[in-house]
Amino acid sequence: MDNDEQSKTVKAVKGWLLEARDDVLRQIDSRLKVDTKSSRSDLVTNIDRSNEKFIVNKIREFDPDAKILGEEGFGDKVTDTKGRIWIVDPIDGTMNFVKQRNHFAMMLSLYINGQGVLGFIMDVMNNELVYGGPDLGVFINTRQMVTVNDSKLQDGLIGLSGPMVVHDDFNMQEIANTSLGMRVYGSAGIDMIAVLKGELVGYISYLKPWDFGAGRILAETIGLKITTIDGRQLGVLSSEPVLLATENAHHDILTIVKK
Amino acid sequence: MDNDEQSKTVKAVKGWLLEARDDVLRQIDSRLKVDTKSSRSDLVTNIDRSNEKFIVNKIREFDPDAKILGEEGFGDKVTDTKGRIWIVDPIDGTMNFVKQRNHFAMMLSLYINGQGVLGFIMDVMNNELVYGGPDLGVFINTRQMVTVNDSKLQDGLIGLSGPMVVHDDFNMQEIANTSLGMRVYGSAGIDMIAVLKGELVGYISYLKPWDFGAGRILAETIGLKITTIDGRQLGVLSSEPVLLATENAHHDILTIVKK
Repeated sequence: MDNDEQSKTVKAVKGWLLEARDDVLRQIDSRLKVDTKSSRSDLVTNIDRSNEKFIVNKIREFDPDAKILGEEGFGDKVTDTKGRIWIVDPIDGTMNFVKQRNHFAMMLSLYINGQGVLGFIMDVMNNELVYGGPDLGVFINTRQMVTVNDSKLQDGLIGLSGPMVVHDDFNMQEIANTSLGMRVYGSAGIDMIAVLKGELVGYISYLKPWDFGAGRILAETIGLKITTIDGRQLGVLSSEPVLLATENAHHDILTIVKK
Repeated sequence: MDNDEQSKTVKAVKGWLLEARDDVLRQIDSRLKVDTKSSRSDLVTNIDRSNEKFIVNKIREFDPDAKILGEEGFGDKVTDTKGRIWIVDPIDGTMNFVKQRNHFAMMLSLYINGQGVLGFIMDVMNNELVYGGPDLGVFINTRQMVTVNDSKLQDGLIGLSGPMVVHDDFNMQEIANTSLGMRVYGSAGIDMIAVLKGELVGYISYLKPWDFGAGRILAETIGLKITTIDGRQLGVLSSEPVLLATENAHHDILTIVKK
């Protein structure tokens, strides 16, 4: 992707996200239509759906030959990573959205032949857009982000999935105890922004492609490490426990996971 | 306390908190001097100290006969609840302050003969001041807060202390499982604002008087319930596990705690 095409794409996506954000804010006090999916804590609302439709339509217009993988199913059935793939999470942290009207994100990313090109995470209520890619660097709103300190697990706070802590999956409780404290925010997008900013040294949760698609590109661009929980390479289309962390904390966490 | 005195007090305290906030923001990117207190996760910084000194001096000027209980010890030795007592937490969530420069609060409250009169919690980085008391109601910045929905535990998110979850104190893991999800924010002030706004149905943590002094007044004013973890009345000068929740979630949680 040449520079011109890239800046044209960034400009277009920013426009969609701002428009989608306005739309969410306009409806923020309305009564939501909430349905459960796989469990009582896996929710989808009318706004997740309308927001995904809106973004999918924008992508179709802008990039008609690309495939689209969307959380709520308005994209395509994507089975391999050939060509251009857009990954869309219209509302990440739907439980927070429903119960808090706060602490949720919109996420969008573009992969070409399995390589991450551009990622976008918008913290809707904080009006914070973190975006970028390997050719561009990472920006938070208009400010370019510098490299994150390579902190150790024992010197930082760690973002975890609540259920994984309670079930002590992969020695999650020892990971929490080794850190200076665990935090549970309930949205991959919000957690990943915190890691990108250096507020957390890492984040662990069971994730799907739309949960980590954007964050992975941003994380790798800024020198963070993102793999499966046991250190394997993360597939673009994987659904599994994901470990995002500074290089040092990643090493510390893997040591505990593999005990 | 008559109405005139009350509005004069509110105006004064708002002024101190805004001035203290400006001072913190001015130093937000500076290198902090960090010391540990009771453990490696119990921190105090030069800013906690200077901020407490600033507030204590303001109180001494404004209310010379009152006693002051401050987290960092610049107040008085307070052993009973007679008379006017100001309770000060200059930086609540010091670990977040140190590691995140985000998600921390300043808290201040006034008790007269053991009765809560006014409470103030300022989310510094969100520029959100929640304040009020039984005669005044509760305000978030300039907007009066209405009563919170009396949600059940099973219908809401619950704010917990990370260590209490990991150690499964008081059946904390069953409490998390019963709710729609646990959140761990790491600051009593930030957690209590979330409960006051209805973003969480409750919050449980081991707290000291400066951690709950302000939140207790605001919570009781707005119809929330705050007690010890086993449902006893909370003393103004107590240090123990505290349970703040909606009436319904309070009942649900007590049932699980007492199993």
